[in-house]
Amino acid sequence: MNIEWINAPGAEITAQAKKDAETRQMQLTKPPGALGQLEDLAIRLAGMQGTPLPQAENVWIAVFAGDHGVAVENVSAFPQSVTSEMIKNFSEGGAAINVLANELGAALEVINMGTIIDTSALEKVLQVNLGPGTENFTQNAAMTETQYIRALEAGKQSVERALLADTDIYIAGEMGIANTTSSTAIACALMGILPQKLAGPGTGLDEAGVEHKVKVIQRALALHIEYQHDCSEILRRLGGFEIVAMVGAYIACAQKGLPILVDGFISSVSALCASHLCDDMNDWFLFSHTSAEPGHMHILDALGAKPVLNLGMRLGEGSGAAVTIPLLRLACSLHRNMATFSEADVSDSVSVSNNMSDNN
Amino acid sequence: MNIEWINAPGAEITAQAKKDAETRQMQLTKPPGALGQLEDLAIRLAGMQGTPLPQAENVWIAVFAGDHGVAVENVSAFPQSVTSEMIKNFSEGGAAINVLANELGAALEVINMGTIIDTSALEKVLQVNLGPGTENFTQNAAMTETQYIRALEAGKQSVERALLADTDIYIAGEMGIANTTSSTAIACALMGILPQKLAGPGTGLDEAGVEHKVKVIQRALALHIEYQHDCSEILRRLGGFEIVAMVGAYIACAQKGLPILVDGFISSVSALCASHLCDDMNDWFLFSHTSAEPGHMHILDALGAKPVLNLGMRLGEGSGAAVTIPLLRLACSLHRNMATFSEADVSDSVSVSNNMSDNN
Repeated sequence: MNIEWINAPGAEITAQAKKDAETRQMQLTKPPGALGQLEDLAIRLAGMQGTPLPQAENVWIAVFAGDHGVAVENVSAFPQSVTSEMIKNFSEGGAAINVLANELGAALEVINMGTIIDTSALEKVLQVNLGPGTENFTQNAAMTETQYIRALEAGKQSVERALLADTDIYIAGEMGIANTTSSTAIACALMGILPQKLAGPGTGLDEAGVEHKVKVIQRALALHIEYQHDCSEILRRLGGFEIVAMVGAYIACAQKGLPILVDGFISSVSALCASHLCDDMNDWFLFSHTSAEPGHMHILDALGAKPVLNLGMRLGEGSGAAVTIPLLRLACSLHRNMATFSEADVSDSVSVSNNMSDNN
Repeated sequence: MNIEWINAPGAEITAQAKKDAETRQMQLTKPPGALGQLEDLAIRLAGMQGTPLPQAENVWIAVFAGDHGVAVENVSAFPQSVTSEMIKNFSEGGAAINVLANELGAALEVINMGTIIDTSALEKVLQVNLGPGTENFTQNAAMTETQYIRALEAGKQSVERALLADTDIYIAGEMGIANTTSSTAIACALMGILPQKLAGPGTGLDEAGVEHKVKVIQRALALHIEYQHDCSEILRRLGGFEIVAMVGAYIACAQKGLPILVDGFISSVSALCASHLCDDMNDWFLFSHTSAEPGHMHILDALGAKPVLNLGMRLGEGSGAAVTIPLLRLACSLHRNMATFSEADVSDSVSVSNNMSDNN
């Protein structure tokens, strides 16, 4: 497959803004480095937003949902109907991501990419509807080329809506019963790792459930592994509509210069795919949290990621990224509003060297 | 020394409220446990606040400042004048904790416990003024019994002010050049650990500086170690005014049933002292973050603490605790506002067991 737009490189970071932000951090009334990762976050956002005084006020959260044919293999602790039931919950404001978006004053859009149960009666849900879930990828490719291309485009269109709303930072979330199976299979193929190393309990499988999931993924890999050097083919064959949409969204963010805050396991696999497909992708990722899903750390390592939080969360929906937003906001506010040593007439640490020399 | 009030036990947790909160978490539309530590935080706060629907809206931050006689031993990367300069910065709103308190809508009080430079001209700073800093504890006890008792009481009075303001959660912060030296010495004495294992760079000592700091602490321990089984004597001999005030504040919080969010290294040593002095103390602590100060993990282990954040922060002032408040608020809001399975008509994971049995 040759889909031209996804291969254009990401935008360039503004080196001068990043450097100015680094300089400012050294002048604030605190020991250098004493705010730890909060300093790094402000500096990286400065480079992405092209200003020495970045912000994380306008947050866009897009939750992509879709069903997975592989759910018939009993790889989830929840029945497949839960995907659509949760879409209804999103539309009614009862899910975790609704509560979080509300607290944060973030824009939230829910996009049904294709589920077994029709949700078109639900207001507030964007319907892409690529079909009644993907095919069971232990037997066939998960989706057609047309579905794959349309899923990528749905992600891109979400980013275009976010940009129209003056978004400072973009979060993609997901909902789809069996989508840890899909994303684990993708990651195994791209990273050359065995499924027994990456597969985990997802929403709550027991040990026997995880062993069964490993076997399902092994069968899928046996069928599709010859395409492991072609990320688009792997995504089309082993992906989910919502996973591909997230890949498209991430690539569009990088190309348009919109900072991305990555959520957990499934989002990170989407990020890995995006970085395979698009150059300079990694400059645009901030990583929010380390998931309780045990394979996540391997994906994070492959991306060189050092997430902000490690709270044992494993919900998806973009919830881990949403929970990280207040820390980004505080990082930006500290960076912008703290006094400098000279403004506050506070001695900085340089003077102690002289002082110590005098006394010694 | 016998100071009666500090030996009264902490209040009891409301077991029923905690249990009701646990039950509610299991009914919310997410896989059980999927919100990780956010669930635990809501449940623990429920027990402390005696309600199944806790909150962290009204936050009280008290920053206790004081000078340390041991600063003459060149144990800090900053000159001693910085304690008073930072008090001025606090009073003018330029420090990290001002920016954070402002963003959080938290009450912030700054209490000068005793510094070498007079700050009584500063409005907005409460003056306790126990003297021009402590004595150099490598030569004498850091403070007199009277100073020790008054420092504890200053902490208690801060909590009384917090309670009058309907506080949901209390944060104590500190500022005092050389106070990692004091708190490291206290922790070494109480825990029977060698200073070379606990001492770290504080605000930014280099390797030689840390080695020198270890030697200073060794001299102090040699002089005072015979009191290691008497926490009050250790605090009086090796403490700082601000450290003792934090101990008094923590004990008063536990006795009055006000949840405490503990900051970093110095705050955790104060928490350790409070738990030595007062029974049932640990029920009232939530731990915000793991500091970059390398000895912090040993203190946390001794307290059985599992902090929320690990951002490499090492600023003090209560800043790490303040940064954690938004996560407590989101934990409470998720707990309060998410729909339950029955409210949202979402299938929960129990039904899949039947489903899987049917299919197998």
